[in-house]
Amino acid sequence: MKASVLSIGDELLVGQVINSNSAFIAQKLNPAGVEIIRVVTVGDDLDSILESLRDLNSNSDAVIVTGGLGPTHDDITRTAMCRFFNTTLEPNEQARASVARFVEQRGLKWTAAADNQVLVPAGCRIIPNALGTAPGEHFIDGRKSVFVLPGVPYEMEAMVTGYIVPWFLQQPGGTFVLHRTLKTTGIPESVLAAKLGDIGALIGNEKLAFLPSPFGVRLRITTVTADRDAGERTLRSIEERIRLLAAEYIYGTDDEELEEVLGGLLRERNLTIAVAESCTGGLIADRITNVPGSSDYFERGVITYSNRSKTELLRVPAELIRVHGAVSEEVALAMARGIREVSGADMGLSTTGIAGPGGGSPEKPVGLVWIACADSAGAIVRKFTFGDGRIRVKQRASQAALEFARKRLLGTAANG
Amino acid sequence: MKASVLSIGDELLVGQVINSNSAFIAQKLNPAGVEIIRVVTVGDDLDSILESLRDLNSNSDAVIVTGGLGPTHDDITRTAMCRFFNTTLEPNEQARASVARFVEQRGLKWTAAADNQVLVPAGCRIIPNALGTAPGEHFIDGRKSVFVLPGVPYEMEAMVTGYIVPWFLQQPGGTFVLHRTLKTTGIPESVLAAKLGDIGALIGNEKLAFLPSPFGVRLRITTVTADRDAGERTLRSIEERIRLLAAEYIYGTDDEELEEVLGGLLRERNLTIAVAESCTGGLIADRITNVPGSSDYFERGVITYSNRSKTELLRVPAELIRVHGAVSEEVALAMARGIREVSGADMGLSTTGIAGPGGGSPEKPVGLVWIACADSAGAIVRKFTFGDGRIRVKQRASQAALEFARKRLLGTAANG
Repeated sequence: MKASVLSIGDELLVGQVINSNSAFIAQKLNPAGVEIIRVVTVGDDLDSILESLRDLNSNSDAVIVTGGLGPTHDDITRTAMCRFFNTTLEPNEQARASVARFVEQRGLKWTAAADNQVLVPAGCRIIPNALGTAPGEHFIDGRKSVFVLPGVPYEMEAMVTGYIVPWFLQQPGGTFVLHRTLKTTGIPESVLAAKLGDIGALIGNEKLAFLPSPFGVRLRITTVTADRDAGERTLRSIEERIRLLAAEYIYGTDDEELEEVLGGLLRERNLTIAVAESCTGGLIADRITNVPGSSDYFERGVITYSNRSKTELLRVPAELIRVHGAVSEEVALAMARGIREVSGADMGLSTTGIAGPGGGSPEKPVGLVWIACADSAGAIVRKFTFGDGRIRVKQRASQAALEFARKRLLGTAANG
Repeated sequence: MKASVLSIGDELLVGQVINSNSAFIAQKLNPAGVEIIRVVTVGDDLDSILESLRDLNSNSDAVIVTGGLGPTHDDITRTAMCRFFNTTLEPNEQARASVARFVEQRGLKWTAAADNQVLVPAGCRIIPNALGTAPGEHFIDGRKSVFVLPGVPYEMEAMVTGYIVPWFLQQPGGTFVLHRTLKTTGIPESVLAAKLGDIGALIGNEKLAFLPSPFGVRLRITTVTADRDAGERTLRSIEERIRLLAAEYIYGTDDEELEEVLGGLLRERNLTIAVAESCTGGLIADRITNVPGSSDYFERGVITYSNRSKTELLRVPAELIRVHGAVSEEVALAMARGIREVSGADMGLSTTGIAGPGGGSPEKPVGLVWIACADSAGAIVRKFTFGDGRIRVKQRASQAALEFARKRLLGTAANG
């Protein structure tokens, strides 16, 4: 099955909102046998919507439309649907039930806006909305479908997983597009490519994409198959070949985040961690605590931006800072040891560096970061240079620190 | 001038990478008199690229193509360009200079990949790339232009601001699409709409969009004009009318982040801040330290996830936690006072709450957060309920806390 996404909204075209809906839709529909072949974004303009809808509908088995379903003056998607399917808006009992349920759950009042949301194009099926007032719409025209969803991400997401995915899974036949992503960090794209050698020999007829970001390079393997089990075996076999060549850089697969992997290791070993951050400014703690249940192993974090706080909270001797500077191997080590001692956690992790744009010097340029990790076996420290861009330096340093801790737990981290 | 964006890359269609490039392009080109009328995303597929390029080129004055310019096997944009403009790849001296400069700056070796990047379609202008190896391309065909840029965001961004924007500014005539965004927080969309009353009376023939997010509702005013100064006056006058109705909820304009606004106030008043976070897990400190120069006013942060750390780092009496629970008005106040005292900062800001998904109870449900702020005049505290979704609760709580501190500085914050 080939599908397209039509995203509607001026806010997308002027760059005020980044279109993350189409990415979510693809992630959920690919494993249900649906390939996304095109994503088009247009503004709140009737002619543009109709022109794109005609074009996408003729090239795809299904079109997923998002945005412009609300009750305000700039929401014209329902009007466009009536025009496209040559029908009119009518009060719909299923839509009324969906809106009523939401209004009641949230303890809201029934307003004129709610009355308006009960009107849907005659002839479509209703996709109930548990998280907002605008019901979704499903038009079936022969073998083709058009799904119309609100633009609010969590409302749209619930409808995709609760209605559209199950609907596609019930359709007969079709091919599956299967992906497997190996997430690496700590190795540049070109070095990773060299390690993997001849790509053709490695992947045969399948696809392999290199996707770099400040957090590392993701390797995405893709196979298209009519036989889901055979496809899964193909992915596994390529994954194994890649792991033979680059295992030490791979921290996780698919949607796994490094902070989840690290958290899983800590939980498994019944260990706790505490962090002392300088240049990363709380980002490491923020990422660790994004993981549900992290309070089981995350004891505390401190962000010691001032020298005084390094001394007071981590017992880093003021003299050490004076002699070596706050951004130094010695202070990073003292911070990691200090946070471990004062917190009583099993592992202490620290960062100190220059995020920029100011504060750099020829000996200590912007992007220089020292990362240290202390545990019952001692402490190790490593120097990194992350280039410029304040946010990028913070991101890279947080990733390198989490990876340093992960490798320390696995016994593969080293001073450097 | 009407322009379209064509984003190329399988990674965008399978949802692995969110297309943020088109948003950046729109943000930079709108003020240069260029309206983005359509954004299309296709995979690394020659036919799809050519079909979309034909379509967009016929409907727009300019097309900005991003992605697929690299040296690896899946990069086919240059091939597509040769096909579209009926030309061939040739070594280009300007491209060689761009690649050579990058290779030298980074201390890299000249490789086969670099040789490959020197090949560009004959007849195009080169857009130098200071941040990567792939040069950009500019095809001029009568009054129409096609710009071809790498997909790597920071390389693309530098070419948009360094080459494409100046190029459009040099073109004669045209209309400008001007935007002004007022950023609000702490007020739901529907309540804000009610406060603004009759939208038609407020904005006349201009456009006003409500853009909700976990961080608040943005109000975007848009005007299209041939006279830039008149357009700016129109925006200012509508902004003033909106401010008369909803000033207390507006913390900033356009790209301003709340952490920058708060940082500006602290700097102006020569005050320092320290934060004590529980449920926000470091996100507040992370946001504060995203602002360049924040080390001038951010003294320290602590993330006191364990009760023990609240007592040790913030002097919150263990008895207080036992009696009222860690998530309580009393503990929030003690945390704010505690971080202020131990750090010596002028202002202490604290959060304690239940981010979920676990840990909720009927009296203290997931999403309940207490936020407190202490300064030389005393301490205030406020209760919030942010619903569910761990990351969303963290985001909303961080925003509410920064806003609480901002209002405290302005003398408009209250217990609640």
